[in-house]
Amino acid sequence: MAHQLISHLKEGESVHQFFLVRAAETRTDKSGKPFLTLVLGDKSGTLGARVWSDVLAKCPGPFAVGDYVGVQGQVSSYKGELQITVQYINSVEALKARGRDLKDFDPELLHLATPYDRQQLWQELWELAETHINPPLRSLVLGLLTRYQAEFMVSPAARLYHHPYLGGLLEHTWSVARHALASLTVYPDLHADLVLAGAILHDLGKVKELANPHAPEATAPGQLLGHIVLGWEMVREEARALNFPDPTLLLQLEHIILSHHGTLEFGSPVLPKTREALLVYYLDDLDAKLKMMDQHLQSDTGEGDFTSYHRVLQRGLYKGGERPQTEPETSPESED
Amino acid sequence: MAHQLISHLKEGESVHQFFLVRAAETRTDKSGKPFLTLVLGDKSGTLGARVWSDVLAKCPGPFAVGDYVGVQGQVSSYKGELQITVQYINSVEALKARGRDLKDFDPELLHLATPYDRQQLWQELWELAETHINPPLRSLVLGLLTRYQAEFMVSPAARLYHHPYLGGLLEHTWSVARHALASLTVYPDLHADLVLAGAILHDLGKVKELANPHAPEATAPGQLLGHIVLGWEMVREEARALNFPDPTLLLQLEHIILSHHGTLEFGSPVLPKTREALLVYYLDDLDAKLKMMDQHLQSDTGEGDFTSYHRVLQRGLYKGGERPQTEPETSPESED
Amino acid sequence: MAHQLISHLKEGESVHQFFLVRAAETRTDKSGKPFLTLVLGDKSGTLGARVWSDVLAKCPGPFAVGDYVGVQGQVSSYKGELQITVQYINSVEALKARGRDLKDFDPELLHLATPYDRQQLWQELWELAETHINPPLRSLVLGLLTRYQAEFMVSPAARLYHHPYLGGLLEHTWSVARHALASLTVYPDLHADLVLAGAILHDLGKVKELANPHAPEATAPGQLLGHIVLGWEMVREEARALNFPDPTLLLQLEHIILSHHGTLEFGSPVLPKTREALLVYYLDDLDAKLKMMDQHLQSDTGEGDFTSYHRVLQRGLYKGGERPQTEPETSPESED
Amino acid sequence: MAHQLISHLKEGESVHQFFLVRAAETRTDKSGKPFLTLVLGDKSGTLGARVWSDVLAKCPGPFAVGDYVGVQGQVSSYKGELQITVQYINSVEALKARGRDLKDFDPELLHLATPYDRQQLWQELWELAETHINPPLRSLVLGLLTRYQAEFMVSPAARLYHHPYLGGLLEHTWSVARHALASLTVYPDLHADLVLAGAILHDLGKVKELANPHAPEATAPGQLLGHIVLGWEMVREEARALNFPDPTLLLQLEHIILSHHGTLEFGSPVLPKTREALLVYYLDDLDAKLKMMDQHLQSDTGEGDFTSYHRVLQRGLYKGGERPQTEPETSPESED
Amino acid sequence: MAHQLISHLKEGESVHQFFLVRAAETRTDKSGKPFLTLVLGDKSGTLGARVWSDVLAKCPGPFAVGDYVGVQGQVSSYKGELQITVQYINSVEALKARGRDLKDFDPELLHLATPYDRQQLWQELWELAETHINPPLRSLVLGLLTRYQAEFMVSPAARLYHHPYLGGLLEHTWSVARHALASLTVYPDLHADLVLAGAILHDLGKVKELANPHAPEATAPGQLLGHIVLGWEMVREEARALNFPDPTLLLQLEHIILSHHGTLEFGSPVLPKTREALLVYYLDDLDAKLKMMDQHLQSDTGEGDFTSYHRVLQRGLYKGGERPQTEPETSPESED
Amino acid sequence: MAHQLISHLKEGESVHQFFLVRAAETRTDKSGKPFLTLVLGDKSGTLGARVWSDVLAKCPGPFAVGDYVGVQGQVSSYKGELQITVQYINSVEALKARGRDLKDFDPELLHLATPYDRQQLWQELWELAETHINPPLRSLVLGLLTRYQAEFMVSPAARLYHHPYLGGLLEHTWSVARHALASLTVYPDLHADLVLAGAILHDLGKVKELANPHAPEATAPGQLLGHIVLGWEMVREEARALNFPDPTLLLQLEHIILSHHGTLEFGSPVLPKTREALLVYYLDDLDAKLKMMDQHLQSDTGEGDFTSYHRVLQRGLYKGGERPQTEPETSPESED
Repeated sequence: MAHQLISHLKEGESVHQFFLVRAAETRTDKSGKPFLTLVLGDKSGTLGARVWSDVLAKCPGPFAVGDYVGVQGQVSSYKGELQITVQYINSVEALKARGRDLKDFDPELLHLATPYDRQQLWQELWELAETHINPPLRSLVLGLLTRYQAEFMVSPAARLYHHPYLGGLLEHTWSVARHALASLTVYPDLHADLVLAGAILHDLGKVKELANPHAPEATAPGQLLGHIVLGWEMVREEARALNFPDPTLLLQLEHIILSHHGTLEFGSPVLPKTREALLVYYLDDLDAKLKMMDQHLQSDTGEGDFTSYHRVLQRGLYKGGERPQTEPETSPESED
Repeated sequence: MAHQLISHLKEGESVHQFFLVRAAETRTDKSGKPFLTLVLGDKSGTLGARVWSDVLAKCPGPFAVGDYVGVQGQVSSYKGELQITVQYINSVEALKARGRDLKDFDPELLHLATPYDRQQLWQELWELAETHINPPLRSLVLGLLTRYQAEFMVSPAARLYHHPYLGGLLEHTWSVARHALASLTVYPDLHADLVLAGAILHDLGKVKELANPHAPEATAPGQLLGHIVLGWEMVREEARALNFPDPTLLLQLEHIILSHHGTLEFGSPVLPKTREALLVYYLDDLDAKLKMMDQHLQSDTGEGDFTSYHRVLQRGLYKGGERPQTEPETSPESED
Repeated sequence: MAHQLISHLKEGESVHQFFLVRAAETRTDKSGKPFLTLVLGDKSGTLGARVWSDVLAKCPGPFAVGDYVGVQGQVSSYKGELQITVQYINSVEALKARGRDLKDFDPELLHLATPYDRQQLWQELWELAETHINPPLRSLVLGLLTRYQAEFMVSPAARLYHHPYLGGLLEHTWSVARHALASLTVYPDLHADLVLAGAILHDLGKVKELANPHAPEATAPGQLLGHIVLGWEMVREEARALNFPDPTLLLQLEHIILSHHGTLEFGSPVLPKTREALLVYYLDDLDAKLKMMDQHLQSDTGEGDFTSYHRVLQRGLYKGGERPQTEPETSPESED
Repeated sequence: MAHQLISHLKEGESVHQFFLVRAAETRTDKSGKPFLTLVLGDKSGTLGARVWSDVLAKCPGPFAVGDYVGVQGQVSSYKGELQITVQYINSVEALKARGRDLKDFDPELLHLATPYDRQQLWQELWELAETHINPPLRSLVLGLLTRYQAEFMVSPAARLYHHPYLGGLLEHTWSVARHALASLTVYPDLHADLVLAGAILHDLGKVKELANPHAPEATAPGQLLGHIVLGWEMVREEARALNFPDPTLLLQLEHIILSHHGTLEFGSPVLPKTREALLVYYLDDLDAKLKMMDQHLQSDTGEGDFTSYHRVLQRGLYKGGERPQTEPETSPESED
Repeated sequence: MAHQLISHLKEGESVHQFFLVRAAETRTDKSGKPFLTLVLGDKSGTLGARVWSDVLAKCPGPFAVGDYVGVQGQVSSYKGELQITVQYINSVEALKARGRDLKDFDPELLHLATPYDRQQLWQELWELAETHINPPLRSLVLGLLTRYQAEFMVSPAARLYHHPYLGGLLEHTWSVARHALASLTVYPDLHADLVLAGAILHDLGKVKELANPHAPEATAPGQLLGHIVLGWEMVREEARALNFPDPTLLLQLEHIILSHHGTLEFGSPVLPKTREALLVYYLDDLDAKLKMMDQHLQSDTGEGDFTSYHRVLQRGLYKGGERPQTEPETSPESED
Repeated sequence: MAHQLISHLKEGESVHQFFLVRAAETRTDKSGKPFLTLVLGDKSGTLGARVWSDVLAKCPGPFAVGDYVGVQGQVSSYKGELQITVQYINSVEALKARGRDLKDFDPELLHLATPYDRQQLWQELWELAETHINPPLRSLVLGLLTRYQAEFMVSPAARLYHHPYLGGLLEHTWSVARHALASLTVYPDLHADLVLAGAILHDLGKVKELANPHAPEATAPGQLLGHIVLGWEMVREEARALNFPDPTLLLQLEHIILSHHGTLEFGSPVLPKTREALLVYYLDDLDAKLKMMDQHLQSDTGEGDFTSYHRVLQRGLYKGGERPQTEPETSPESED
């Protein structure tokens, strides 16, 4: 049975397909019998599910976060949100052991991920660095990209607020770096190498701050030290390893990393004190906020010209007005 | 005698040239005799001057703000700042009446002004609008540019903080508009016409907020109403005059004007609630801050790697590090 | 059956009367059957209701926001709040079609509205303007009142926080204007015409910011432009239409409208820079806050000397202490 | 020689009259000789003065803060401010000892003071309390007024910001109390006795916070405890002395005193939690701000439509626009 | 049956023991029958309970806040929190009347209380004051401790945030006073008597701010006046009663009480202006925050290295890392 | 001639002794002749000096920041501050070259420095670490102290605000560490090794942030990276060099360094999330603030019970009240 994206499900439909378990908890109903509440996910979003006690007796699981599961059930509405009332559930692993047909099982469909082709993003980012950054910063940037490529390809850009998915960091970095290149045409007296290196490396510490890209969570170093100083150290160590020849230039790059949150209140230990650092701060912040708006607009299903209130942006967004048709340079993959 | 720019004067030098009077005040010395303190300006900056009582007796003036004057004097240092001890002073008008040789008198040299060719900036801005904005916003933008061209060519972008000089508004708008065009290559799903129209018109109200471009000061409507609502009204009236056909589109453009300061604390009556408004806010703010940094770095004459504290940016700036040579697309005019 | 006010209902009582539907949503129960949750309202408040699946089968509706409905049911308590378990429900329209007796149906009882007689408030406001404001501001104020009378008679003063009901804007304006008149006896050197015109017109833009007075919601211009600038434009256009003879006086009135939120953080694009503007700001803010307190004290049903925490005022209020008996000048209408 | 008010002095005039010494300091000139800098005051303001070494040799003083002095001198301008170059100076005490003619000496002219007749203000305040406050609060208020009448008649309302002069507290209290009476006509369901008692007593602690009404300074208890708690204690002790019969009513009055700064940031240990407390807070704050504006407008001598920046109000004020002629109920005394 | 601490209960266990009723509410189920929701407490925490209609019919109560009850039931889980499904419930009073065996009933086990022996804490606090504070402050402190001993022994330190239990004020004061003594060894030039008296008396007003130590709630004076000024008055009155001989010293102690919240935003009417006041502020705040952290760490039952978000501290806490074994000087009593 | 401390100089005295040049600038007087303004310093403070043109002709210098100079002159007062009118000045180097008697020249007297014996502070700090910190943190702390001993012995604790002098970092660290040891007796369940290591190492990065201990200035890394991350890296590198065996323990120590400013606004990239980190933050902040108060009280020379306003603490301080005599454990060296 073909996979229906969670974002496309409607009240009253039946589902018979695979999901990723994002959360699971056993509770007790009024009569004292256990039932199961789940959060199921695919690449398009998440959805609650209930396995009432009678079904649970037949499908005892266990079901843990990160498990792939096959599910039959009914989509209903509860307090204004959709959820699945489960009629049958089993783990892919168990189904495989029983020799069931898993030809429709495609893990790629089940992970929240960037809509772009990650290989292509990586390629473009690499070429941007190789083409537009001069030595000695070029080898520093390429060295770090090489060293952390594996993590960079999967890491989200944030746990919750923007690009919180597989490849999110890559997508965000690619976007900020391309914007930096464009901005340099307007501000040609800025130090282009610094701006581009800063744009590419500003969030590098995220690969140590966040773990488990399928269901992002902060690491202990991430919470106790933060990605800003972790990323700074990564740059500093790479420079040491490369015997970086220009300490003044390096210092300015380090300053961009440390100051890229723009204000102390947002966790930068120093304010941007160069124009290059100021530019990277604005481009990073702008890309994150535009993405938050995008995500909020896309998740909105209500009526009216305005979305619900966005807690971080502290406003509702305007949905009205039609967009002219555009041809994005790199189009997101089609979804089916 | 060739004009020496104020920014190039040094202690101990003699001057014999023209200035613009930016401030003037008569005081009384300890023995009860009057003397004159002046602030003199040219396109590169301002400088204090003293006309002691003996000189004042021979050169009684009067000298008022806005007068052009011919001055002979000596550059000295007082409390760490240069000033001119005047040996002779007279107004250009009086000199002309006396038939003096004024061939070296060039008012253009005496006004603080954008370093760019204003005709060229205007041409580029106009072409950007004509080429990249589609109807119906194209005619709205071109209509407003036409209607306010005279003011737009001379108005500063702010009284004090950034681009506070002849043509400052034009330079700032040109910069923001070109940046917007560049940003749209990175965010192609934004409404390009709205972004470009917003970028060009966001500060239009400045032409009513500020008067006297040679020595900018706020008008009464500027202080009691502010440029944000004044500019909004200008857009709204032009649209009415043009019978603008798309009220929803117009509303979104108006929203960009009103929200372009980004937060209520900075005087926008509404927060940006569209991605287009958010982008214009960031590009405007970024250009202003980069210019403030530029101005502060250029006005710094001290030693050490850092400038003095900048009161608005609330930080000192880093001066160290050499810049690579660049070829700006539109180069500022040469200064001699 | 006589209407029982929602604010007077108690657990265990039966109801058999009319309501206004303020919200409606269909959900699915555990067994997959649909049921209906409603919010019902009358002039005294709102209340939740449940139409379980068996009742819903007999009374299928549909029921939409804004419908008048006849209801039979039982008042019960759920999570500490009262709600109605519905035994029968039908729309007034359907009942009418069936020829049922609707003599007890009185829409006035079902709308949240000012407790005052709106005609009388309007009369008093008009007389205040006519008597106490001198030309040329008198004709400007009366012109605007005339032009927007219809909207002014019904508009709420705010969507949620204070006077959020039919005639709320009128009640608030009447109160602020009368207070302004009283304040002028203490500050006789203020410009009385400006203070009174400002007090009457300060919130005029609300008639464009808010729609649907029976269940107030913000319009798109309301959210994207805000009532402050909308009201300012209304004043400016009326003045143009009247060929208002004193531009300086007009500028000061416009300044009162734009600055009447008192601080930038609260959405005024400029700070009050005249004493008249300062006074109007204080009287507006005070009236809104006193009303919020009133509303919170009246909605409180708990025990103890203090109300629950008020989210906007950020405090609980003191309920203790008896009030001396007073004779209000204009008494709210009786409620039966 | 008739007294010329400091606020009326102009550059170039001669003075020959009496002043109050508000500050005095001996300095050394470049040649090592001592000279004297003074701040001289009268009821209209203050002014700097210099007694150069040659004059000082003949008029050695000493001159201390609080001394009355006779002065001959010349009004000149220094750094944009007027000052007196003294030709002769002696203390009134010394002049008296020498039998000089002191018929023009009138201490009342030399103290900064309320422009109103303090006896009349006191009379009106007393009558307001006696007429409009009911028992038991009436006797509490009258008891406190009686007990602190002497201090109340002279105390300023603040050291610097508003009403910083002889009788300032009385003028401010009289104004707030009259406004409270006027406001009660608009909000008749408030507890009138509480509002009026709160309005009259809210700043009572000022008589202990500030000393030396001619040149106000904070006392040690004023700085370490503050007028809010000092005033609260005064009310509480008076109530105890009177065996005040209604503890709940008293508690509400005490709450008004403690919360009258409206927010914690401004020094109230509790937020206003009753409508009566809220009203007194607004009326107090409004009167102080209106007075600050008044003072700033009156002290402004510059050109243009706007005053200089007011550091506390954080804005310049609009001076433009003519005021219609008014007849204040209680006119300030004429000044000559 | 031995008492099982609430903090040790697990899903699926049976309980048969005594509790304190902390909250009680009757609701109606879908079929219209009443059921009871309770919050039950013991010294280790609180827990929800449900008495469904069938059980309620047999055990009709009534059950009010503050009642001791005997309960039989089953521990289940609801929305991730444990609760008791009650099978039998009756009040201790009723059980006593029926002659039931109450030998296991121990009220001490049922009150949330400091884990320390309150007599011992009191003894240590008293000795600290007696040994280390010199006259005349010694008798002031001992006088106040004597006068308010009864309240001091039971009062919590706060209603919710830290030490919100029987004896909490005593435990907090004991801790701050001992820390103050330790700090004086590092800052020996501070006035030791002032520091110690301030540390012991800083929160004295809590005994008037909070009532009902078993289930703390704010009094009307507590909410309308606050513990800071109430405590200040208590010190002032004791000093008057003792004819305290050194008014300057007393003023400094009063200042410590009033300024001990450190900033105006947190309710102190004055900022600390002496080093002694600054030290007491830091030690008080530190002890409260450390206790909040303690309480949050101990109440955390989740997995992972970090606790849930703490609303007041605005962060999650790190749980990882083992603590070395320590021997506290005064060990909390054992819990079984 | 014996050295008179700057802090003891009085108007009218003669000086004949040595100073350190802290600032120097040549200016031009009205007649166009150069004169010299200096800031001279010794261990007790700084003082302005003027070398007028006639003296400068005889003593041409040059005099640069950091030079020791012998000076004869006269102490006078200018705008309320003392300054020296120089009659003779020469550098110690030149005097030495001329064979002058320099027996009174003692550089130790000329540097602003901690009043304590630095060797003794170091000894006590070392012993505290050696005695009270267990492995493995002991060797980490001692390793870092050893590695940075030279810098630690001279570095100030801050450029301006507290301990801004030779040995200031050592004095501050010694104070915080001793306080930490004392606090642990009150909070015995904290991890003592972490607290002590954190207390000793929290400001270690200052040795890289600040240069030139005799006249502290920020380094470029200090301004672009900040001492917090610099210190963190130093700890991390030492741990790597030592092959530190307990990564979880190390992480907690690193967290203390990074979070020790307590809030993001004050430059910590993370909030304290352990009780150990919270304690170190409070003890550091308290010591800095107490020292600021100390410094301000000692520098105050005015009359009255209160100091002038302290710009950082945002308050004036209370000077009144006598201190009881105390015997500090480690007394500051005597000053003559």
